Amino acid sequence: MKGRLTGVGTGPGDPELLTLKAVRALQEADVVAFFCKKGSAGNGRAIVDAHLRPGVIELPLVYPLTTETHKEDRNYKEPIAAFFDRSAEDVARHLEEGRNVAVLSEGDPLFYGSYMHLHVRLAHRCTTEVVAGVTAMSGCWSVAGLPLVQGDDILSILPGTLPEGSLAERLAGTDGAVIMKVGRNLPKIRRALQSAGKLSQAVYVERGTMASGKVCRLEERDESPAPYFSLILVPGWKTRP
Amino acid sequence: MKGRLTGVGTGPGDPELLTLKAVRALQEADVVAFFCKKGSAGNGRAIVDAHLRPGVIELPLVYPLTTETHKEDRNYKEPIAAFFDRSAEDVARHLEEGRNVAVLSEGDPLFYGSYMHLHVRLAHRCTTEVVAGVTAMSGCWSVAGLPLVQGDDILSILPGTLPEGSLAERLAGTDGAVIMKVGRNLPKIRRALQSAGKLSQAVYVERGTMASGKVCRLEERDESPAPYFSLILVPGWKTRP
Repeated sequence: MKGRLTGVGTGPGDPELLTLKAVRALQEADVVAFFCKKGSAGNGRAIVDAHLRPGVIELPLVYPLTTETHKEDRNYKEPIAAFFDRSAEDVARHLEEGRNVAVLSEGDPLFYGSYMHLHVRLAHRCTTEVVAGVTAMSGCWSVAGLPLVQGDDILSILPGTLPEGSLAERLAGTDGAVIMKVGRNLPKIRRALQSAGKLSQAVYVERGTMASGKVCRLEERDESPAPYFSLILVPGWKTRP
Repeated sequence: MKGRLTGVGTGPGDPELLTLKAVRALQEADVVAFFCKKGSAGNGRAIVDAHLRPGVIELPLVYPLTTETHKEDRNYKEPIAAFFDRSAEDVARHLEEGRNVAVLSEGDPLFYGSYMHLHVRLAHRCTTEVVAGVTAMSGCWSVAGLPLVQGDDILSILPGTLPEGSLAERLAGTDGAVIMKVGRNLPKIRRALQSAGKLSQAVYVERGTMASGKVCRLEERDESPAPYFSLILVPGWKTRP
């Protein structure tokens, strides 16, 4: 394929946290592709709004409506895999015509990003570049002003979907921790932090670097479900030289 | 103190991986401070070179020469703590005079960054902002084009200084891993990866996003000591939907 594929990290939300390289990649793109839900172009597209060239082709890749009971469920896995196959082919058609395609990825493309699903399907077929981005977690601890890890600290990045016992055990055995996928798992995460003896240090960050962002000690947060863009941070750095 | 303190993440090495916000912070700074070794202004200062205002005050914070036998050693800890105290006071003098000070931090300031030592000493005494940056690890896996973690994957960030048994155990119990502080620990890290059954997946990255960078499978890397700016990456993402 003659066109170039670029995975562009858009950072955690604040449009100023775009890198100079991301801005250049957007300005050199003939096509800007982005994952989104029906009815909304999504955060990635909003972040880059000021940097798109007039006349650039926009390629929204609209997630199908699925009922995710369990991610191993066939009724989820099959339609979502078919969607990524289809999306890769939509992008490939532009690459075959020699157009450069930038795929937006919130945060950093190869760190829990949807871009990865296109990368594994296309990178062996064309020239590919990945523009690293500021992750959501970096955005969150920076807004919180919370020094996270230092020196020989171990940092564990854990999904809030883990069973409570496993989560507690991992929290007890690490220095710093970032807990993602908080949402409805908040009460369980709180209990796991409590049994690991780390509840009092935990900080809750909601929509880190967005204007509507919120930071507080987890102990001060009520039990209502957290939004998707929320994280819990446990600093690992206790001593200073 | 009347001046504003800003911790500025300079990203992993490629000057284009500076954020727009970092560039603005540099342009608004009266003083640009940076940690360095005697005789070299260091990577952070080199990365921002094109963005400093003419006439800006440069404040190099030169690490003392220490013989680091062990980080808990008094002969290391006391001089290094005194150095950070002194550096904080050097910065504070400018803040007291009402000058805005940007402190450079390679990668992301609150993620294993030296800036943290100033932050804990000064943030409660003045207006402070932290500008998140692209981490070295993001820079490395992007250059390697290596999708690292996805979905519910657990990522462990581990120092290569861990004892071999503990390192092997943690590598076996995680999905993805990033091993830092490789240097002289390379043979031990290799053995730990072998006993965790993950040696064949490991990727070695040296000076990730610098012009002199190098990426290869760890199995293809010889046993000579690795430079400070090297990482080992173990991708966690095995299945795709």
